[in-house]
Amino acid sequence: MESGPVVLITTANGGKQNIMTLSWTMVMGFTPRFAFLTGPWNYSYKILKKTGECVIAIPAADLLKKTVQIGACSGAEVNKFEKFKLSPLKAENISAPLIKECYANIECRIVDHIKQHNIFVLDGLAVWVDNKRAEKRCFHAIGDGRFIVDGEVINHRRIMASKLPNGV
Amino acid sequence: MESGPVVLITTANGGKQNIMTLSWTMVMGFTPRFAFLTGPWNYSYKILKKTGECVIAIPAADLLKKTVQIGACSGAEVNKFEKFKLSPLKAENISAPLIKECYANIECRIVDHIKQHNIFVLDGLAVWVDNKRAEKRCFHAIGDGRFIVDGEVINHRRIMASKLPNGV
Repeated sequence: MESGPVVLITTANGGKQNIMTLSWTMVMGFTPRFAFLTGPWNYSYKILKKTGECVIAIPAADLLKKTVQIGACSGAEVNKFEKFKLSPLKAENISAPLIKECYANIECRIVDHIKQHNIFVLDGLAVWVDNKRAEKRCFHAIGDGRFIVDGEVINHRRIMASKLPNGV
Repeated sequence: MESGPVVLITTANGGKQNIMTLSWTMVMGFTPRFAFLTGPWNYSYKILKKTGECVIAIPAADLLKKTVQIGACSGAEVNKFEKFKLSPLKAENISAPLIKECYANIECRIVDHIKQHNIFVLDGLAVWVDNKRAEKRCFHAIGDGRFIVDGEVINHRRIMASKLPNGV
C-alpha cells in the first residue's frame, strides 16, 4: 500500500465492531510500519486509543461506492458491517475484525500516538491477501470527492534493485 | 495528492539544488498540511533540517522512469537537475526550486520534525499546477519496484458532500 490507496480501518470495542474510511495514510519505510491520521472528530478515535489495535483493510474497486458511503456515516449511529453487508472475519492476533470482501487485510498494533499532529503509528502483525479475486485494482482519493482507480502497472525493479530489501 | 502519488522533493543548500524521490507521504486533513518520512540515510535529510523548506513536485507518467532513476542515485555524487535534464524554476516563497517538467509543485515550509519516527510535517505555502500539459496521470509505488499509473476517475462528490470543506 505504498503511496497508498483509500483504506478501511476496523475496530472492536468489546462486542461492537466498526469500520471507518481513511485516505490519510503513509507507509513508513520497508518494514511493515504505517502511519495514519485521525482525531477526536472521529468515532473510531477513542476506540483506537483504548484498544491500541485495528485492521487496515484494503478495498478493491468493486467496493469503491461502499467505501465512500462508509466514510459518510458514523459508527455512533449505525452498525456498518450490517448496513453495508460486509462480513467480519476473526483476525489472528487482535480483536478487530478482518473484512472478508476486501482485497487485503493487515492486522495492526498501535505503537505510538503523536497527539499534537493526530498521527497514529502502527506495526503490521499479519497480512491477508485475497489473490483469487478478479478485481484487484485499488483506488486513491483526489480529496474533492473524486477517486482514481489503478491503471497499468509498470515494472522498474531493475533500476530500483539497489534500494530494495532482499527478497522483494 | 491525497492517498498520494510518488513525489519529488527539491531542496537548495546555498547554491546547490537537489532532488530526491519519495513515496512515503501523507496528506494531513483538508488543510494544506503534509507529512513525509525520510531520515539520516538520505542526502537531503540534513538540508531539510538546515533550511526548513522544500518543494513537493508531483511528476506525471511521462517522468516515471526519471523519477525512479532519481531515487536510485545520490545528490552527494551527482547534480540531478543536470543529469536528468530537468529545469529548476524559482519558487515564490522559498529557495528550493520548482521542477518545470512536473505536473504540480507545492512550496512547503517544515513545521515539525518528529525525530523518533523520521516524520517531517509541512505546510504548503503555494501550489503551481500545469493544467495545460497532456499527460496528467500520476503514479503510485507498490513498494517492490513496480508502479501503478492512474486509471479512470470516478466521481462520488454527492456521497461525500457533507464531509468536504465548502468550495471543494
